[in-house]
Amino acid sequence: MPELRKDPIVGRWVIISTDRAKRPTDFVREGVKIKGGFCPFCYGNESKTPPEILAYRPTANGNPPQKDSPGWTIRVVPNKFPALGIEGTLNKQAEGMFDKMNGIGAHEVVIETPDHTATLASLPAKRIEDVLWAFRDRILDLKKDRRFKYILLFKNHGEAAGASLEHAHSQLIALPILPIYVVEELQGAKQYYIYKERCVFCDIIRQETDNGIRVVGENEDFLTVAPYAPRFPFETWILPKRHESAFENSSSHMFENLAKALKSLLMKADRVLDNPPYNLVVHSSPVQDPTNEYYHWHIEFMPKLTKTAGFEWGTGFYINPTPPEEAAKFLREASIEDLAPSAVGTR
Amino acid sequence: MPELRKDPIVGRWVIISTDRAKRPTDFVREGVKIKGGFCPFCYGNESKTPPEILAYRPTANGNPPQKDSPGWTIRVVPNKFPALGIEGTLNKQAEGMFDKMNGIGAHEVVIETPDHTATLASLPAKRIEDVLWAFRDRILDLKKDRRFKYILLFKNHGEAAGASLEHAHSQLIALPILPIYVVEELQGAKQYYIYKERCVFCDIIRQETDNGIRVVGENEDFLTVAPYAPRFPFETWILPKRHESAFENSSSHMFENLAKALKSLLMKADRVLDNPPYNLVVHSSPVQDPTNEYYHWHIEFMPKLTKTAGFEWGTGFYINPTPPEEAAKFLREASIEDLAPSAVGTR
Repeated sequence: MPELRKDPIVGRWVIISTDRAKRPTDFVREGVKIKGGFCPFCYGNESKTPPEILAYRPTANGNPPQKDSPGWTIRVVPNKFPALGIEGTLNKQAEGMFDKMNGIGAHEVVIETPDHTATLASLPAKRIEDVLWAFRDRILDLKKDRRFKYILLFKNHGEAAGASLEHAHSQLIALPILPIYVVEELQGAKQYYIYKERCVFCDIIRQETDNGIRVVGENEDFLTVAPYAPRFPFETWILPKRHESAFENSSSHMFENLAKALKSLLMKADRVLDNPPYNLVVHSSPVQDPTNEYYHWHIEFMPKLTKTAGFEWGTGFYINPTPPEEAAKFLREASIEDLAPSAVGTR
Repeated sequence: MPELRKDPIVGRWVIISTDRAKRPTDFVREGVKIKGGFCPFCYGNESKTPPEILAYRPTANGNPPQKDSPGWTIRVVPNKFPALGIEGTLNKQAEGMFDKMNGIGAHEVVIETPDHTATLASLPAKRIEDVLWAFRDRILDLKKDRRFKYILLFKNHGEAAGASLEHAHSQLIALPILPIYVVEELQGAKQYYIYKERCVFCDIIRQETDNGIRVVGENEDFLTVAPYAPRFPFETWILPKRHESAFENSSSHMFENLAKALKSLLMKADRVLDNPPYNLVVHSSPVQDPTNEYYHWHIEFMPKLTKTAGFEWGTGFYINPTPPEEAAKFLREASIEDLAPSAVGTR
């Protein structure tokens, strides 16, 4: 008998198929492959992107670093085809009964490595940590702009997950509004807090740590866990163990441990699911309200294993063929011996 | 400058790209093609599906119709691989802080035609009307079962839209819970009603009819319109002009006119977008609360033209490259001369 499960934060029910649970090999898998060809994100092609906003570029022989030249390890540039424009003042207006505003915002690309053949999973943990620091630097800069209410950090890996360029990169969109899923999460977390006087995510961390069946990995600062009511097969969340509302407020040892947790999860997913296309989304408090008792920032990892799409979009109703307990077991037990033991979260 | 627009029902903001608007030919289009091969939904293969629940089968030469035999025009059968099971009593329980229930529900397939080469768009309007009557018959039967709170009617057309069999069919899932998108729509519509003392959908119909720029077609009973803040390029809604909360409460002339409106929209979409894969979802009041002042049933049509997926799922944030005014114009002006003039909605 399949099971209906309710997400404790937003109240979304999903169907979990328990009878004929799909194992990793049951999914038609088109692993992400690097094809090569001309790439504006590679070394030497710095002039093919808009001028860089930020770069980590070690000084060579004491020479001052040259903007928009090779030598960088991470580079942040404006998206060449931005979804929103940075210039202008916010202008909210009615159109009869409807509401609109001009599309002001920022759309930036974080080029995670100069190496075209690398993936975020294959980078050393230290380099992944640098990507996280670049996110933080950009958030701290953009949140000074009071027009922006939310900064969305996300990564599309593989064409099937929406990536238009194969060179490893993440994206950042600063918005003058809150996306609806953020609003729902904030509302749900607030309601739980009013009722229980506890953070719902802190409660989840406690229960999951106690029973362990959905735990994928753990280190000093982070718990990696399959959520109780996942929408997608092998959906996995990384949560900071101590309550913190906003990603950018994390301390430096947290970024080090988040890089390790992220590397471990991505390598395990590559191992178990054969280099799947995936989306990563950072869920964090609105930038102008970064500290509260009820919301707890986290990362959601969603490998793209199934083709169905529009139906779920149209209904908010999800049928997940893999119970999270089984997904967690596959990921937990995946050996990633090529990863230094110190970098792997273990229980 | 792109534009941010807010859906007046659920409050979801979307980005509409107004600068480089994508025209129909700008999308990579893999039109739906019928491949053939063995099909359990074809004439003569009635034994390959679970026993039929309902069929429209004209009596031949005065002989009584034979169940699970050829001669039918529409046939409703249980889904062979149901997402939910029909037997048992609802059993809601806690799992620590989480909530679950056993997966009780109904999952049925409406085989829309015995002709493997036909599509819903190509069927005569009268046959489409029969499909709508079959939906209604099944809803009226299933709503007697008090375990069910919602009945989801939907159609996946084409593999890219999630269809696993190519023979024209729709699906029906009866659920013991309300899908989250339904909850949000009901809440949003109720809030608007409390504030304005009017139905938000009735207000939309009035404004869209007055200014006409997003109207695709119209007949005596239905308005076909591109919504103000669509998530997807060429997303289109069909709304009954007079307030009615539930699909199944429609009168018989409404089914006749809905069939015509639906055929017109599907043919226009096939013409403009080259037989796109698509999802159709009927949005209706919960079956145990079918009549109220604030909710207005309607059909949402979503052609699948873009590949991106997980990001939108993860954030509730949509970037739509085609303004609804342009999509509506393309569809409105598409000539479907092979459709009898009486069947086409015109302004």
